This record gives sequence, structure tokens and C-alpha cells, in this order.
Amino acid sequence: MRVRGAPLIGAVGAFGLALALRNDSSDAGLACAQAWLASARPTAVNLAWALERLRRRVAGVPPAERAQAAWEEAERLCDEDARCNHQIGEHGARLLRQAARVEPTPQQPLQVLTHCNAGRLATIDHGTALAPIYQLHAAGVAVHVWVDETRPRNQGASLTAWELAQAGVPHTVIADNAGGLLMMRAEVDVVITGCDRVAANGDVANKVGTYLKALAAADNGVPFYVACPVSTIDPDTADGASIEIEIRGAREITHARGRLADGRVAEVALMDERVKAINPGFDITPARIVTGLITEHGVVAANGQAIAAVLAQALRLSAAGAGNPS
Amino acid sequence: MRVRGAPLIGAVGAFGLALALRNDSSDAGLACAQAWLASARPTAVNLAWALERLRRRVAGVPPAERAQAAWEEAERLCDEDARCNHQIGEHGARLLRQAARVEPTPQQPLQVLTHCNAGRLATIDHGTALAPIYQLHAAGVAVHVWVDETRPRNQGASLTAWELAQAGVPHTVIADNAGGLLMMRAEVDVVITGCDRVAANGDVANKVGTYLKALAAADNGVPFYVACPVSTIDPDTADGASIEIEIRGAREITHARGRLADGRVAEVALMDERVKAINPGFDITPARIVTGLITEHGVVAANGQAIAAVLAQALRLSAAGAGNPS
Repeated sequence: MRVRGAPLIGAVGAFGLALALRNDSSDAGLACAQAWLASARPTAVNLAWALERLRRRVAGVPPAERAQAAWEEAERLCDEDARCNHQIGEHGARLLRQAARVEPTPQQPLQVLTHCNAGRLATIDHGTALAPIYQLHAAGVAVHVWVDETRPRNQGASLTAWELAQAGVPHTVIADNAGGLLMMRAEVDVVITGCDRVAANGDVANKVGTYLKALAAADNGVPFYVACPVSTIDPDTADGASIEIEIRGAREITHARGRLADGRVAEVALMDERVKAINPGFDITPARIVTGLITEHGVVAANGQAIAAVLAQALRLSAAGAGNPS
Repeated sequence: MRVRGAPLIGAVGAFGLALALRNDSSDAGLACAQAWLASARPTAVNLAWALERLRRRVAGVPPAERAQAAWEEAERLCDEDARCNHQIGEHGARLLRQAARVEPTPQQPLQVLTHCNAGRLATIDHGTALAPIYQLHAAGVAVHVWVDETRPRNQGASLTAWELAQAGVPHTVIADNAGGLLMMRAEVDVVITGCDRVAANGDVANKVGTYLKALAAADNGVPFYVACPVSTIDPDTADGASIEIEIRGAREITHARGRLADGRVAEVALMDERVKAINPGFDITPARIVTGLITEHGVVAANGQAIAAVLAQALRLSAAGAGNPS
């Protein structure tokens, strides 16, 4: 796992395909590279989507020109991702602002909870779930973020907390277990996460543990939003049960990496070596407990009808010009 | 935190009071020792209960005899705890067995999920939540336990997994985030946890994260049981919102202890030193999503009426003889 974050995985996959075409730009080379790259990460749909977009772009081009055409398409895809995330930030900032129970002040800021990392480190720029937070912060709205540590890989503690610190956004790391209590005690105004795939019916695959936070949000009347570009919606996946969940290595559970007192990085075994562990990387949040999907085209209800409508809208805009989803 | 597990905290507190009375057995000494010991851990009611039981036992005794009387009462309390847990095991084993969706076989065992550690290491003997599992295993029923690692102190990974290994019960450690997915995919037949306090209305305080698992159980039709001696029920606490939640040190979140490759124990920083973290130790599971409380007197519905009835029953039995709750 050198690259993580669904949009970033898609972008890196696109450049990977462009590079592969420099070695072999034949039809067989194209098909082989697409299949090989797609197999790297099964859960996020962005990878399959980006590779398919490049294939369509270059399949009709003479083999000698394919590598260059693919490279340009990958660059376009990155530019679009950044623009799209900026728009997600605008739509999301409005929604998050509305979720405040009191007028936000530095003493009583808007309280946002997020899981995993869906920020600048997961995308080309801005992030998805964090984009609205950055926009609110830049606009002078007092925001505080509860950051789930996000075991077992600690993307919240190590990535989201780092990103927010760089941007000067107040935040506090909590154990993944603590979010339910905070919501019950009215210390969370709104939950926002990114996602790896949205099924046609609105079910959401995201980092394991997301489902538990969505349940707690529903139980406490806290809005639960999922920020995602329309490219994360997979109309070919009927529902969450059809999404393959990547099973990752048990060592992520049984061991932890960190810095020793002398600054050296070390790995410690957290439990007996003989302990068996399993490590599903994602879970499914049913559409019925998702308050809304925040896309570059605005907020979309998590149901089949609204999703079909936004996909149709994106297709019309894409056909109308320049592949620019705005 | 040298002692953990609500029943064990109560027992150790009782012996602590007996020891304190050796130094000062006056009325003031008794009151002072009781208050000081009770302040050590605010969430579990067993400590306050055990100390109050000893106070009542010795208050009417001449000061010179108080230390000995207290010691004997603490021993009685331990004997009762072990007997009581054995009875919890019997009632619980029956219930857990009923929760099996298929006839348990080593290939398709009864699938039980537990959070934190409510086993032999948390009690005088048998455990509470693990007692039924030990009884089923001893009776030859195929059981497999999903063990929540239970961040941030890892009581599941380090204590429950160790206990189950000692007893030869098959088990697998999972991240706290993973239980929801397992329940959604029908890989959990029943959830059982211990608890630190049951309020008069049936709300349950237990290790932080328990609430999230109870929500997932309710959402997937999986029974969620809480194993507890009647002494864990606190009729003076109206509901979960009235229970003080212990806030523990942030270092439990920001650092992890484990073994280096060379076997030495070391602590590593999991995140940037400047990261702020907060660490509530417990959460509240509302009575409405608790399937039942497994006590030494049988299964009690998590509501005020059923709880009042079992408390009255326990009081009658206690008055009838020997403080033996059976």
C-alpha cells in the first residue's frame, strides 16, 4: 500500500496505464495493463473507472500515439479531480454550516466527526470529506474536528490529524470506539466521510468502521454525509452486498509502528505471536442511514432514483463539453 | 490501573478496606477509607457496592474487631462472586446456544462476539461474559469467539485472546471497527459483554465502543446480551445519562506498548507529539437495544420493572440466608 485514498488511487492508476503504454501500446498491451492495474485494489471503484476512461480515450488512437494520449487524459483527470473536490467543498460547507446547533464560536465551534482520511493526502487537492472543512475554516467559521484514529492503519491519527494541523484546523483524535458516546452526549453536530464506492442503490463502501459511526449518527439524530465525486458511484454495482471487501494482512492488527523515545521508528507486537486476526479493510453503510451524498453536482439523496438522475446529469454535461463535470 | 474488571475492582476494594481498618478502625477511619477507595474508579458500581457492603457489616462491630470482620466479609464476597459467575455461565450458556443459526460444528461453530475483557482476568473466577463461553466449550459445543481488540488499552487483544487461548477456545482478534461488517455478513450469532454499571432503567455502562456494537447487533437482528451479577445494577442511578464516565489519559491513545523483535517491551508514539487526544473509558448502551441482562438469578429484561423485580428477589434471598445469592 504505497498509494491510498480512492481518488488518488484512480489518478495514480491512470498514470500507471500511460506509463505501461510506453512499453507496449498494442491492443493486447492495453488490455493487459488495464486488467493488471485494476486488480491492485478491489474495493474502490475509482481505479476501475479511471482505467476504463483511459482505455476508451486511447482505444481508437493509433498505437504509436496511445502513450501520449493516455498521459494527457491522466492529467485532465487530475485537473478535474481537483476542480470537482473544490465543488464538493462548496456544497459540503453549506450543509455542514447548517448542521451547527448553535452559532459557531471559537468556544462553541461547529463539531464535525470524520473517519479515516479523505483529505488532501487522499486526492489530487482539497480532499473530499475534508474539503468542506477547509472551506469553512478559510471563511472564518469556527470548526473543530473529532478525528477517529481509524484502526488498524491509523489513517485518522497519522494523516487526517497531520493535514488538519498543517491547515490550522482545531482537532482532537479519539479512539474509534468513542464516537458513539460523543454523539450521545451531543458533542457532534455532523459526521462526514469519504467513500470508496457508492452502489446504484446508495449503499456506501468506505473504511471499516464507517458503518458503526453511521449507526450512531442515525441513533442520535446527527446528519451523516458521504463526500464523493460522481465517479465514485458505480451503477454496475446493484447494492452494498455485491461489493468485494478487501481483506488486508493480519499484521496491521497484531503489530503497530511508531516512534521510540529516541526518535527511531520501530514496530511492536501488540499481542501474542500466536494470535489469529482478520482484517477486512472496508465495510458497507446502508443507504437508509446515509443523510446525503455530497458530489460536485450538489447533494444527492442516497437512493436509486436520485443517483440515476445525477449520473444522467453528469453524462449530459460530459457530452456537452470538455469532460468538465462543472 | 493495576486492577481492572468491575467485579475484581470490587473485590480488591473490599480487601483494601479490610487492610485500612488494621491501621485505623475508628468510625472516622472507616469513613475515610471508604471514601478514598471509592474515588479510585468512578464508573463501575461494584467498587462502591463492595465498600458499602463492608461498611454495613462492620459499622456495628467494636472497632477492635472491625479489621477481622471486614477481612472475612471480603472473603465471603469473593466466594459469592465466583459462585455467582458460575450461575451466570449456566444461564448464559443456554441463551447463547439458542442463538446458533445452525447446529454448531467445528466447521460452523456458534459465532460469539465480545468486547473488552469480562473473563477470569476481570473477576474472581469464571468471568461474566466469558463464563457461558467456557461452559459451552467444556460441554463440547463448538464455539468461536470474535474478540474486539478494544482500543485504546487492548484488553481484548491482550487479555481475552490470552484467556481463550489458555482454555483452548477458538478465537480471532478483529479491529473494533470490523464487528459491524461481520454482523451484516451474518458471521456473528450473538454478542455478549460484561458491564460496569446497569442503571435502574436498564441502560448499561461498559467499555467504550460497546454502544456501537449494540447498535450493529440491533441493526442486524443479532441478540446483544450483557452479563452481570445483580450487584452491578445500581438502583440509585436513574439512567445512563447520570453515570459518570471516567476520562483516562490521552497517552493510551497516542502511544502503544508492545514487544520489539528482540522481545524487549517498548512504547512507540503512534502520532505526532503535538496531537491532542481525549480518552473516555466507557460509554452508555441504551436499554432499548439490550436484548437481556444475564444475572445469577437468570435473564432479566433491560427495563425498570424487570430490574426492580430481580433486585427484590435478590434482597429476599439475601435476607433468607447467608448472603448466598443462589
